[in-house]
Amino acid sequence: MSEYYIGVDLGGTKIYTALADEKGKIISGNKMATEADKGEEVIINNILASIESVIEDSGVAKKNVEKIGIGSPGPLSVRKGIIYETANMSWEKVTIVEIMEEKTALSVKLENDANAAALGEKWFGAGKDIDDLIYITVSTGIGGGIVINKRAYHGFDGAAGEVGHMIVEPDGPQCGCGNYGCLESLASGTAIAREGKKLVKSEQVETMIREMSSNDPEQVDALLIAEAAQKGDKIAQDLYSKAGWYLGIGLANLINLFNPEMIVLGGGIMKDKELLDDSLEKSLEDRALPSSLKQVNICKVKLGDEAGVKGAIAVAMEEKLLS
Amino acid sequence: MSEYYIGVDLGGTKIYTALADEKGKIISGNKMATEADKGEEVIINNILASIESVIEDSGVAKKNVEKIGIGSPGPLSVRKGIIYETANMSWEKVTIVEIMEEKTALSVKLENDANAAALGEKWFGAGKDIDDLIYITVSTGIGGGIVINKRAYHGFDGAAGEVGHMIVEPDGPQCGCGNYGCLESLASGTAIAREGKKLVKSEQVETMIREMSSNDPEQVDALLIAEAAQKGDKIAQDLYSKAGWYLGIGLANLINLFNPEMIVLGGGIMKDKELLDDSLEKSLEDRALPSSLKQVNICKVKLGDEAGVKGAIAVAMEEKLLS
Repeated sequence: MSEYYIGVDLGGTKIYTALADEKGKIISGNKMATEADKGEEVIINNILASIESVIEDSGVAKKNVEKIGIGSPGPLSVRKGIIYETANMSWEKVTIVEIMEEKTALSVKLENDANAAALGEKWFGAGKDIDDLIYITVSTGIGGGIVINKRAYHGFDGAAGEVGHMIVEPDGPQCGCGNYGCLESLASGTAIAREGKKLVKSEQVETMIREMSSNDPEQVDALLIAEAAQKGDKIAQDLYSKAGWYLGIGLANLINLFNPEMIVLGGGIMKDKELLDDSLEKSLEDRALPSSLKQVNICKVKLGDEAGVKGAIAVAMEEKLLS
Repeated sequence: MSEYYIGVDLGGTKIYTALADEKGKIISGNKMATEADKGEEVIINNILASIESVIEDSGVAKKNVEKIGIGSPGPLSVRKGIIYETANMSWEKVTIVEIMEEKTALSVKLENDANAAALGEKWFGAGKDIDDLIYITVSTGIGGGIVINKRAYHGFDGAAGEVGHMIVEPDGPQCGCGNYGCLESLASGTAIAREGKKLVKSEQVETMIREMSSNDPEQVDALLIAEAAQKGDKIAQDLYSKAGWYLGIGLANLINLFNPEMIVLGGGIMKDKELLDDSLEKSLEDRALPSSLKQVNICKVKLGDEAGVKGAIAVAMEEKLLS
């Protein structure tokens, strides 16, 4: 008898749910608005609706669904199955595993979104034949998931992998977390945008960023700066360069600590990775232990926009995949 | 029938070997000069002599010795059983496991010294009931061993755990490894001594370090500076303070990345840990993610001078201990 698995990629804007066969092949998928501002009951009902939808569309009998995996932003406890809170979502301390198991009568497993994406890349993406890898997502923030011996490495209570909050410049800018000089405060989309906004405010530097944002700092974001850089604006290129240099320091630290076989880079900023490449490579060459640098394969995600949902499927399938 | 295990703590100055019963209790021990400058043959013969000596002294029949564990400075390959080179020892690319297995007719396992010490603390020291811990030794350099799921974490080729070469100040002083701003270049005994030497050379700062070293920078080391600090010299205290602050940044990064249950601190500088404590605690409080900081137990090694040999015994006993 065939077994099926459901993955739920729970985001602040949308819920992406898919049903897969025992090889991880997606049979049916559904995207639905999270309606994150409407509170716990609405969000839960939307998740349930998306699950029902993928079961129905697949033609698979519900009793043949083995498990549901949920990838969610944290902080959360994998062990307790609780989401404590989520930026941009109006809920708090949701016992999601218990609730979903009761409502679906299926077995449910929770994982944080970065670990889920790391597992997705391990089982279905860039790291198929690899036991240990580090996944890093560079977008608004910088997150990470560490896979050791084919499993997500959680640490004591599931908080491991906070790559973005590694301090690489103790006197650096303040980070969203309150700390100073975290990698996220120097190499994320938010960090690039912050520096761009400053330039527009300062009114002293000549850059396309100014015209492209109609001289309004609020309109400056990492994407706009990337466009300016791609059009040849030196100032915009420098902003990406600086972010890439710090990203290289962060990767060098991970390489020196983990001697990893693979680092997989994802997230919005990585779509413009070529803007970072030169400076990133330079700081890697300068800063990583040469023997460990030679051994690591640094590559982009393979799953792209499906990283989240395929990761959630990997979470659901984990025991099966490990057996 | 009882099983016995031998641990060899191979250092640049001395070889410390011990034979233990299947509970890890040391029955006989032997310390012998390494004679590191006399080359491969002499060093190997000294190791063999120390092994023969502990077997003889124990009264245990050689056939009841299950395995020999060797903890050695690297770089080395655990997988291949080869020591590539060792600072202060005149040998290179020694196939130590093969040689020792042939000469002793016993099974031999190699591990780098920091991982061995980490395993020693895990099985016989501070981390007895703990599955995951990070061991850090702060002395001339800064080294580390990472234990995950009760095993030494090696990474792809045994180079994981290079805690001392995590970059915490990209524009910091040059490290022995050639890189700039590694933790080792800011918080090791060598780093503390370097700053003390500078002060004596500068001839502008009033400090006891000057008299205690007879105004000779070459006589300044971390121990002398610790003595000055303990006598109340503010300048010497500041040097330890600064090192402690950077050590806190390093630990914060490990806490944010690993969410560890325990960090065990060892090495010569940790004998004067009270000189570091205030600044270390301050940077930890400021820099580590609060929830993960709350969960980690930061403590000193329990095994002291026996960390190395007990670690080597743990390496020999690993399969038994895991079973």
